Amino acid sequence: MNKIAVFADFIHYDSRIEENKYLLIDGEIIEGLADKAPDGYDIKEKKNAAIFPALINTHTHLPMSIFRGMADDLPLMDWLQNHIWPAETKWLSDEFVHDATLLSCMEMIRCGTSTAFDMYFFSGEIASALSMTGLKGVVGVGVLDFPTKFANNADEYIKKASDLYHRYKEHPDIDVSLCPHAPYTVSPENYLKCVDFCGKHDLVLHTHLAETAFEIGQIKEKYGKTPVEIMNESGAFDIRSIFAHCVHLTDEEIELMGEKNVNIAPCTESNLKLVSGFAPLKKLMDAGANLTIATDGAASNNDIDMIGEMATTAKVHKAVNHDATAFSAETVLKMATSNAAKGLGLGNTGELKEGYKADFFVLSFEDAGVTPVYNPVSHLVYSAGRHDVTDTYVKGKPLMENRQILVADEEEIKNKARRWAKKIKESKN
Amino acid sequence: MNKIAVFADFIHYDSRIEENKYLLIDGEIIEGLADKAPDGYDIKEKKNAAIFPALINTHTHLPMSIFRGMADDLPLMDWLQNHIWPAETKWLSDEFVHDATLLSCMEMIRCGTSTAFDMYFFSGEIASALSMTGLKGVVGVGVLDFPTKFANNADEYIKKASDLYHRYKEHPDIDVSLCPHAPYTVSPENYLKCVDFCGKHDLVLHTHLAETAFEIGQIKEKYGKTPVEIMNESGAFDIRSIFAHCVHLTDEEIELMGEKNVNIAPCTESNLKLVSGFAPLKKLMDAGANLTIATDGAASNNDIDMIGEMATTAKVHKAVNHDATAFSAETVLKMATSNAAKGLGLGNTGELKEGYKADFFVLSFEDAGVTPVYNPVSHLVYSAGRHDVTDTYVKGKPLMENRQILVADEEEIKNKARRWAKKIKESKN
Repeated sequence: MNKIAVFADFIHYDSRIEENKYLLIDGEIIEGLADKAPDGYDIKEKKNAAIFPALINTHTHLPMSIFRGMADDLPLMDWLQNHIWPAETKWLSDEFVHDATLLSCMEMIRCGTSTAFDMYFFSGEIASALSMTGLKGVVGVGVLDFPTKFANNADEYIKKASDLYHRYKEHPDIDVSLCPHAPYTVSPENYLKCVDFCGKHDLVLHTHLAETAFEIGQIKEKYGKTPVEIMNESGAFDIRSIFAHCVHLTDEEIELMGEKNVNIAPCTESNLKLVSGFAPLKKLMDAGANLTIATDGAASNNDIDMIGEMATTAKVHKAVNHDATAFSAETVLKMATSNAAKGLGLGNTGELKEGYKADFFVLSFEDAGVTPVYNPVSHLVYSAGRHDVTDTYVKGKPLMENRQILVADEEEIKNKARRWAKKIKESKN
Repeated sequence: MNKIAVFADFIHYDSRIEENKYLLIDGEIIEGLADKAPDGYDIKEKKNAAIFPALINTHTHLPMSIFRGMADDLPLMDWLQNHIWPAETKWLSDEFVHDATLLSCMEMIRCGTSTAFDMYFFSGEIASALSMTGLKGVVGVGVLDFPTKFANNADEYIKKASDLYHRYKEHPDIDVSLCPHAPYTVSPENYLKCVDFCGKHDLVLHTHLAETAFEIGQIKEKYGKTPVEIMNESGAFDIRSIFAHCVHLTDEEIELMGEKNVNIAPCTESNLKLVSGFAPLKKLMDAGANLTIATDGAASNNDIDMIGEMATTAKVHKAVNHDATAFSAETVLKMATSNAAKGLGLGNTGELKEGYKADFFVLSFEDAGVTPVYNPVSHLVYSAGRHDVTDTYVKGKPLMENRQILVADEEEIKNKARRWAKKIKESKN
């Protein structure tokens, strides 16, 4: 049966809340709403629950899940240089990236996330893990000036991206992107090459930008310009692109990025935990930038839970702006869904309405911590946790139903991750 | 059988992590650890899990759970004057407070919390709901200068506290406290009466203090002094006492509160969401104040989940202090357990060690979002959610086992809360 009708007490439909309706799905596409169970549909009843558009994580590093909690409460450079980079150098391989990405896919499905914009290496394994589990992704191939186990120089990294792009060109759910890592690891010349490649193939360029005050100082000293100035001169703001972090910006830079409707992937929790600072999200939004929401990798954050990230984003950016009405529950949900779909260039995605992709999740209101219910959107953001998600659908297909993952052997995936962690721990002793 | 032995992969014992041990409990008290399952004990095996001391919430308003999510994304005064206070005026009664507190008790048990310091009215119902469900509490009777449905003037509020104190004097798990609401609702004269009453009966005094910049201005204008100056002159810092919020303090006030080892109940999430500001927690800690962790009421926050509150406290106060090593996972756990026990004057509580009360919870590491495990304390704070708690014990007695609440009819409690919410919604239409 290709047609399904999912009942819920609340459905976030076309940016409003509809109560006690059936969401009608024909194959991959939403048909509309109905008051009564229609004939000829597979009927699913979700009592005391709400249906929301699936969440879209616009900046993460999926294979870092196996490093989750390996090193915490450390300064950024100590964390990177003494823990993360050595672990990556020692452990990264196709097999590691495959296993770790599958673990992240389980977490995404359990958090109501349909789509991730990933930035990493060994990207073929990331694309295949997302595809295997029915998720969607923009798989960004990392670019650095220097060699790693993955490639030797910028041209080789770009060649890897080109190969992956040609392999996945016809894939309906996997887009390929090029991801120059950051202004402090990629020269302006190599940024130009990346912008050129993305422009030529109409790919989204994705990069870390202005994450720390240290970066600003370092880049100014090296080039006599800010990271944003380098980015603007590279033409990156004038092609399809999205920029992670964007914490340290001048008012002029904010104005520029607003005028150019730049897509931003703020990572509030990561910025707090690694003390990068508070991004000027309100100013960016007011200036015209397109704000989304992202978790960063599970090694920094220490999860890829978009529900928690929406909550933190709302609360922290209210406080920073001294405005309790800013970053409302409805606003952060929009950032995590329709704004994100727009930023990633995903057509007819990020909202539940007729003709749109049937990507959604079901949030249960059974738990004491989400009882009683006045406003389901407020509950999603301020009271619910990832475990309140019971069902996740992508293109009309259930990836999880009644908290059971249907698309993979989750136990085996978790066991593999545990075996990697055991090896990592043993190698340190 | 009075003796139980609970196995876990990790036990947070005497401020360190012990691996693959049995926690031995004789009646209400911890006996120690064992490597092997001992004879004569009821054996519980918690595989892929950790045992932590139960959490202690040092400032909340338990009966506000039924108002959870009723009004959000509003300025503090709009929220209070147009939503919360009218709802309280209309709905508060013994029955409402009983039902709403029981709902909060369910949430506390599900979040691994053993103890709450409550500040509200109709306090007899709060004490009985906590006691009925096996939880511990310090039940603070609110005091205001003006009349409510609960009492008419400060003397009457204090009389209510006195009556409750005499009723619960012999209760092993319920302490009674007096809670003058705040410097903007209670005159200095009435603070003096409260300090006098608490001193005479050796009760903990609890009050909101320096929560908003608005309060500071208002109090200065009215009395020519700051709230902290009024508090200090009342003698409240020199008796058993604990102060909620403490956001807006001068450096001199921080020094004074540090010298006097004042107990602080910071409410980071509430302060963010209601844009009260960022409390100077690091300065207070460095000065010598005793920092705990609190959720505030579920109407502001919108939960009473201490695990989420630990995470937010750690991340936000790292960022505010530009120090990734500050407010480590271990530090916030200590704030939420042993510091809190000290602040509330709970003897032999807040740690797992020989002779201490067997108050603890079990955190499962089965979920993909907490896989794999390197450091269980880091996972508790940075990766876990309330639903990862599977068991909560207070004084050796399981209140929840394998996610089943054993001490109350949870479904009936949730249904009663839903019926109240339905009435509240209907009354607005």
